[in-house]
Amino acid sequence: MNPDNSKRTIFYISDSTGITVEALGQCLLSHFEGLTLRQVRMPFIDSVDKAKAAVEVINATQERDGVRAIICMTVVSPSIRALFQLTGAHCLDMFGTFVNPLSCELGMPANETIGLSRRVAGAEYRNRINAINFTLGHDDGISETGLKDADVILVGVSRCGKTPTSIYLAMQYGMAVANNPIIPEDLERDALPGTLLNFKDKIFGLTIDPHRLHMIRSERRPNSRYADLENCKREVKQAETLMRREGIDMLDSTSRSVEEISSLVMQRLSLKGAQKCSG
Amino acid sequence: MNPDNSKRTIFYISDSTGITVEALGQCLLSHFEGLTLRQVRMPFIDSVDKAKAAVEVINATQERDGVRAIICMTVVSPSIRALFQLTGAHCLDMFGTFVNPLSCELGMPANETIGLSRRVAGAEYRNRINAINFTLGHDDGISETGLKDADVILVGVSRCGKTPTSIYLAMQYGMAVANNPIIPEDLERDALPGTLLNFKDKIFGLTIDPHRLHMIRSERRPNSRYADLENCKREVKQAETLMRREGIDMLDSTSRSVEEISSLVMQRLSLKGAQKCSG
Repeated sequence: MNPDNSKRTIFYISDSTGITVEALGQCLLSHFEGLTLRQVRMPFIDSVDKAKAAVEVINATQERDGVRAIICMTVVSPSIRALFQLTGAHCLDMFGTFVNPLSCELGMPANETIGLSRRVAGAEYRNRINAINFTLGHDDGISETGLKDADVILVGVSRCGKTPTSIYLAMQYGMAVANNPIIPEDLERDALPGTLLNFKDKIFGLTIDPHRLHMIRSERRPNSRYADLENCKREVKQAETLMRREGIDMLDSTSRSVEEISSLVMQRLSLKGAQKCSG
Repeated sequence: MNPDNSKRTIFYISDSTGITVEALGQCLLSHFEGLTLRQVRMPFIDSVDKAKAAVEVINATQERDGVRAIICMTVVSPSIRALFQLTGAHCLDMFGTFVNPLSCELGMPANETIGLSRRVAGAEYRNRINAINFTLGHDDGISETGLKDADVILVGVSRCGKTPTSIYLAMQYGMAVANNPIIPEDLERDALPGTLLNFKDKIFGLTIDPHRLHMIRSERRPNSRYADLENCKREVKQAETLMRREGIDMLDSTSRSVEEISSLVMQRLSLKGAQKCSG
């Protein structure tokens, strides 16, 4: 049998949720084009028994595929890691690779307790949950009270990406985000709602290519004035003029993911000296 | 000068958002207790000029700290990576370490284009954004229409963690999630709302330690009947009895983060043969 090198099974193995190792594995493997990947998550592998059961699955997979599997793992215990090494799969071993050199560099041993990174009881976690609640309570301009407590205020025309970005900023960075639409009435008056003007230093404007906006709005309300291309063009142009005049920092969401927009917002806030999560 | 080994600056350097490398760095370093870290994000380092500016900051930091910095980086370009290696900082180099061996294993060269992992135009991305919109539209039982389109339905008493978990499942895994509170009226009737009963295979129940629930509710409405410890005990007990009788898969959110709960939900769905994101 001539195994097909480009069809592989990748196992994301972690003694915790496996979210980080999956993101890293996908990032690394996205640079190999023409690869067909079957992805299998194996989270919470925190005992030798669970590891042995996982190893059986991996061995059976390798036999079926006729080619080595890829293992991408963050596992603290050296004895559990060794079990996976013995499968003969190609291992991307985050702990084995980086922790010993780090230990030498820092002159201290690594604590082999699992899952220290997400402590539910900690202040940072509570801050994230509070940020999510704040952000949901300030979605789409539903409440203008408490804007002074927002870390970030996003503005922009309807469907330019404010809500997903707000939620990502809250979830990932613990930012309390309010988002306020720029509605046709604002564009007619040619002015932002007065309540926002006190907070210009934390306002970011999202803008978007009108053709893309037309597509997105058409999914929601086909053939409406709201989704009409000419209307989208006019709204975007007027909103951009308004934001530019008010000196609001603008970001184009057309070809950026919520991760990219959020990361840019954090970077610009940090340039303004307001970074929150460092420490 | 005798530098303090345990006070370090860590730079998260990426040619993209840096979100993955930051998570990985925090995960690795969380296993070194007694370390005081100053964390600096440097996303979007995608040109030699930006890299040179970043290198100047790192060199100045090392001089000020009197000890080597730590660099945790996902940078595709070998020439940009080399600039950071020259700083003499302790480098955790994800690409340099793993991509060449992977390339040998797969028998194909790595594409050095940046940011392939989050394509805004792709179906997976659109699915995530749609999942977020669905999930927001089905938060806290606000809409019971479309429950058949939900991938997951979370139920549980007020403030047991349904909303943040729902949003995380949508954002991270592209799951369309509805969440429905179990309210005192349901407990009195001793029955779930009838609309839910058709979807038992995708319902997960969240439960929580009553003391913790009491704390969380007290922050929101101090000294209310809602937050009263005895009331919390009664609600949790009745809700657990109800869910158990209905055969609903239950998870305890007391000491689990939204990441952990979400990962467990995905694992259990996959055991039911319904995993969505693999492939």
